[in-house]
Amino acid sequence: MKRGFGSDNHSGISIEVLDAIAQANINHAMAYGEDEYSEQVKQTFKKHFGQQAEVYFVFNGTGANTLCIDSMTRSHEAVICSDTAHINVDECGSIQRIVGCRLLAVPTAEGKLTPDLIRTQLHGFGFQHHSQPKVISITQPTELGTLYSIDEIKSIVALAHEYNMYVHMDGARLANAAVALNCSFYDLTTRLGIDALSFGGTKNGLMMGESVVILNPALQANFLYRRKQAMQLCSKMRFLAVQFQAYFNNDLWKTNALHANKMAQILYKAIANIPRVKIMYPVQANAIFVQLPYDIWTQLQKEYFFYDWDESKNIVRWMCSFDTTENDIHSFVNTLTRILQQ
Amino acid sequence: MKRGFGSDNHSGISIEVLDAIAQANINHAMAYGEDEYSEQVKQTFKKHFGQQAEVYFVFNGTGANTLCIDSMTRSHEAVICSDTAHINVDECGSIQRIVGCRLLAVPTAEGKLTPDLIRTQLHGFGFQHHSQPKVISITQPTELGTLYSIDEIKSIVALAHEYNMYVHMDGARLANAAVALNCSFYDLTTRLGIDALSFGGTKNGLMMGESVVILNPALQANFLYRRKQAMQLCSKMRFLAVQFQAYFNNDLWKTNALHANKMAQILYKAIANIPRVKIMYPVQANAIFVQLPYDIWTQLQKEYFFYDWDESKNIVRWMCSFDTTENDIHSFVNTLTRILQQ
Amino acid sequence: MKRGFGSDNHSGISIEVLDAIAQANINHAMAYGEDEYSEQVKQTFKKHFGQQAEVYFVFNGTGANTLCIDSMTRSHEAVICSDTAHINVDECGSIQRIVGCRLLAVPTAEGKLTPDLIRTQLHGFGFQHHSQPKVISITQPTELGTLYSIDEIKSIVALAHEYNMYVHMDGARLANAAVALNCSFYDLTTRLGIDALSFGGTKNGLMMGESVVILNPALQANFLYRRKQAMQLCSKMRFLAVQFQAYFNNDLWKTNALHANKMAQILYKAIANIPRVKIMYPVQANAIFVQLPYDIWTQLQKEYFFYDWDESKNIVRWMCSFDTTENDIHSFVNTLTRILQQ
Amino acid sequence: MKRGFGSDNHSGISIEVLDAIAQANINHAMAYGEDEYSEQVKQTFKKHFGQQAEVYFVFNGTGANTLCIDSMTRSHEAVICSDTAHINVDECGSIQRIVGCRLLAVPTAEGKLTPDLIRTQLHGFGFQHHSQPKVISITQPTELGTLYSIDEIKSIVALAHEYNMYVHMDGARLANAAVALNCSFYDLTTRLGIDALSFGGTKNGLMMGESVVILNPALQANFLYRRKQAMQLCSKMRFLAVQFQAYFNNDLWKTNALHANKMAQILYKAIANIPRVKIMYPVQANAIFVQLPYDIWTQLQKEYFFYDWDESKNIVRWMCSFDTTENDIHSFVNTLTRILQQ
Repeated sequence: MKRGFGSDNHSGISIEVLDAIAQANINHAMAYGEDEYSEQVKQTFKKHFGQQAEVYFVFNGTGANTLCIDSMTRSHEAVICSDTAHINVDECGSIQRIVGCRLLAVPTAEGKLTPDLIRTQLHGFGFQHHSQPKVISITQPTELGTLYSIDEIKSIVALAHEYNMYVHMDGARLANAAVALNCSFYDLTTRLGIDALSFGGTKNGLMMGESVVILNPALQANFLYRRKQAMQLCSKMRFLAVQFQAYFNNDLWKTNALHANKMAQILYKAIANIPRVKIMYPVQANAIFVQLPYDIWTQLQKEYFFYDWDESKNIVRWMCSFDTTENDIHSFVNTLTRILQQ
Repeated sequence: MKRGFGSDNHSGISIEVLDAIAQANINHAMAYGEDEYSEQVKQTFKKHFGQQAEVYFVFNGTGANTLCIDSMTRSHEAVICSDTAHINVDECGSIQRIVGCRLLAVPTAEGKLTPDLIRTQLHGFGFQHHSQPKVISITQPTELGTLYSIDEIKSIVALAHEYNMYVHMDGARLANAAVALNCSFYDLTTRLGIDALSFGGTKNGLMMGESVVILNPALQANFLYRRKQAMQLCSKMRFLAVQFQAYFNNDLWKTNALHANKMAQILYKAIANIPRVKIMYPVQANAIFVQLPYDIWTQLQKEYFFYDWDESKNIVRWMCSFDTTENDIHSFVNTLTRILQQ
Repeated sequence: MKRGFGSDNHSGISIEVLDAIAQANINHAMAYGEDEYSEQVKQTFKKHFGQQAEVYFVFNGTGANTLCIDSMTRSHEAVICSDTAHINVDECGSIQRIVGCRLLAVPTAEGKLTPDLIRTQLHGFGFQHHSQPKVISITQPTELGTLYSIDEIKSIVALAHEYNMYVHMDGARLANAAVALNCSFYDLTTRLGIDALSFGGTKNGLMMGESVVILNPALQANFLYRRKQAMQLCSKMRFLAVQFQAYFNNDLWKTNALHANKMAQILYKAIANIPRVKIMYPVQANAIFVQLPYDIWTQLQKEYFFYDWDESKNIVRWMCSFDTTENDIHSFVNTLTRILQQ
Repeated sequence: MKRGFGSDNHSGISIEVLDAIAQANINHAMAYGEDEYSEQVKQTFKKHFGQQAEVYFVFNGTGANTLCIDSMTRSHEAVICSDTAHINVDECGSIQRIVGCRLLAVPTAEGKLTPDLIRTQLHGFGFQHHSQPKVISITQPTELGTLYSIDEIKSIVALAHEYNMYVHMDGARLANAAVALNCSFYDLTTRLGIDALSFGGTKNGLMMGESVVILNPALQANFLYRRKQAMQLCSKMRFLAVQFQAYFNNDLWKTNALHANKMAQILYKAIANIPRVKIMYPVQANAIFVQLPYDIWTQLQKEYFFYDWDESKNIVRWMCSFDTTENDIHSFVNTLTRILQQ
């Protein structure tokens, strides 16, 4: 496949991650997470997220999100999220099938919930006909490549906890947010009072495997059983664990995320002033959303794969990755320019 | 961890499989199964299972089993299985939660269903209060390390299809059965009329990733959506696909399974005549079930990890793997003998 | 409780319905719907809805709606409905828990879907990450007391069937629609191509018990099992059946619904010109939605129970019933007027 | 339908119950359980079950059982029950679909669990692959018409609570047990430490409607929401409430149950000495299970409807009801005798 900007999961595996897998491929290890590699990386997570953090590896982002929500909600309750949230639009109804609860998807600007938007859903408490709001789910960075500021998250957490609700953070690309905001994972999550986190790695250099980080100890009970029942328990767990160990070693997560974000800025600058190419949202992480004339869009797709984000509005998404090169960008922009000039 | 006989998933990755992952780690590839590696291995599956076979990769055995059942059953229907079936006792209720149907678990000798045993459950058709029997699930080799003969499977499939029911085969260790029966995968599945197959690899040298092989085309509709919704869709699918490609290349599956079975025979012969060590079932694949005196069992477990299979009867399970060595066996048997002599 | 306008289910039982129950209370009858009363009323339904109509009695409206959707959808599919739909806002997430599918709730004016609104959801077909649109659910009359015209329904059904989708009608108050539009049940449902109907009676004079009317024969398979499994199978079914028989006899449904609608018109006219009382939607069935000044609303509620519909906008709902009297209206309007004048 | 012994739900409504419905059919009442009738009968339940008892009306026995289990269990947990339990064999998999948990059905003699039988399932605690045992469900009287003694229940409750498990009692026919054991409802449930009770009335003279009685206050949280979501919330609740009020007034429950049990004894004595008619279990409530020669059974069924209990063993079930007459018994026994003599 031609290199391009289709998705950050079109990239492969960071060499450090692959090496870690190879190095763990000796002798025998206990299965299902009782191995020494898993034990070690659990401690590493505590360094990055605080002592109360308990990490549980799962297979993919849908698994991480669904099991986070499952730990915080029962079926008669509801989750408030942005209408652009991955759990709402891109998981084929996992939450509904696995948790059985209602999603209250709120239209947002730039993919971000605000206290005011959330308050529109804070009613019906105690009314038996109404799914009880119990979780606020935010994505950082958002599915639109934008960022919540620290203060914005603080205000959402405060509102949630005022109503005895939990806050879930979908951090499929959390590293990209951390480097953009120049803060630690702890500062972005535990310190702000996030209750449960989907912490991704696959989009930033891992082979596969994501994780659930439970930050509120009240949510840990039963997690092991429910992960198993939800088909997310890996047998040869060491090969998930060592990927994350490599991810933290020598700040690989940071190196990769800084690179991806930087590439997005280069791409952004290269196209920002091209007429008929409209940048839709602030470019704050590794995604760029662009509105293109219909014919340009279709011609460009003949040479490069990328997702249509909103067909009705001719909006498309371009993602940069840890392995994007400046050459990739030049080739892409050249192609775009050529098509625009025809 | 000390090498031993705890499980065939305590072993690591076949070097050929790891190499295949490394070789696929170049450039970009489409995600979610639309890559060239996935396309190629789909054709390989067709060679081994017939042209109608459609393979879908999933993350683990629980995912494979649950999605097979999900493709064949709705919640008001029922699955007939052995009471020792993995789906019944070892998946923390995945079928119940994800499919919502009833399991009719039948007590069996040596883990094998028979037409007579199945017939005890073939009643209540058309009675609205009764979960309608719809699937027969068999495990090959069984969880007790025994084998169904070709004729035994034929008779079960004939009964199932007579009642308009489907047959699921849990083939988490199908390679071990195929080499033991000296037949091809096709002969063991498609030719016999199996409708859907959980086809494993992790216990025989893969890193992770199992597969669902749909052999009855009527069951393919909706599978992609239901896999995604059930959190079993891998993003960087190429790294699952190439593991299976390597598994089939040069008959790696056969080499590995022959070895594991051979080791089980060596272990079996080494302990068959030791007094107070009772072999419980025919050793036909790579598992040995042994009844030990209570004190021997507990002392042995101080030096080797293995699972208690039935605590009430002092029965334990010892598994051989593709990487078991004769030296592993000698050390283990020596330890056992030493303890017995104390 | 003081008589009022809180809900049409605050009223009691039509005397004809209660008499029918008493008259059926003789001797023995088969349970679970195999009795003669049930057989007889099934024929009556066929007279009103056409020969292909199959009726299944259930206990309440939530059961009827959920089982209709269950007959048409699987968990990876989606239902398009108005954001004001009862299935969306008033059933504490039954669809999500029982069917497990996604609801695509579209903001509407006056509670009514239109082809244009529906089209905003008709995308993502074949995309495995996206819950596949499969059902359009409309409520007739709507939860806001408005009506779909025959032509409006026709256009929605045509769109649905063009996309190989089904149409569900929530007819909890279908009698009120039928009399308002002066047409038969057949004209309102079967003739228009509705696939499955929730047909209510409780809000129009029955004691309890609603029904699912399957109009598309393809949806009948498995219904009996799934009703039982969903806890909606009544044992002494004759006492549900005879209520519906009484409902159809001598057009009781029509008499009751005409009365309720007429009372709503009288109430409407009595308040239409009162300053500071704003009628929100056309009054086309038996419901009136009114915006009141905050202090008026709270004072009125001290004397009469009624539901706040939208607290943020001071909108309340007043319902007329088959047993509403003109005296009830006069008393209520007098109280309202008195409070307004204070 | 000819009067007979098919089921105690083939009978109609006690006249006192029907009268109560008629008397409540005046004016308006709040819906969904907030009416005065519901409030009053809640107090009556407290008199019979103790001050901590909270009653929730539901529509049928499947609803009562499923919601009891739902209040005590999550999907990764398991319920230990007899293999003859109604929740296991006669509810088309409601527990599996609605609660999603595993049922551990234990073969029993005479339908009764014992501590020894239960202990066979008390293992795997803390093992993430194993559905965690959480509830013991017993039926009183059992589905086979037998009774647990007070001491037998005590020993089961003690075992359950020792393991931090709950005890559910399926009391679809609890009145028949109470009169047989000559004790109060309190003595049979609350005093023994039962945590949640399915309390039936339909089989003993009510029209429809059963109830959940939560005796362990820890289980009350969320019940209202979960009943609504599970489609078991009645709108015109007063008509369920007054049925139960009538059931308790003047000990109607006792009168009816004493009669049904007495009729069962008369039937039992009339057939006990008939050759070729074998009584299978002690006749302790209102059910008789009989083994008949195949040809007798089939001939008798031409004249009387009754259920085959176990076709493979020619066992059938005959039920007496509150409205069974001695004449019914004479006619039935005469028919049986005539057929036997042919």
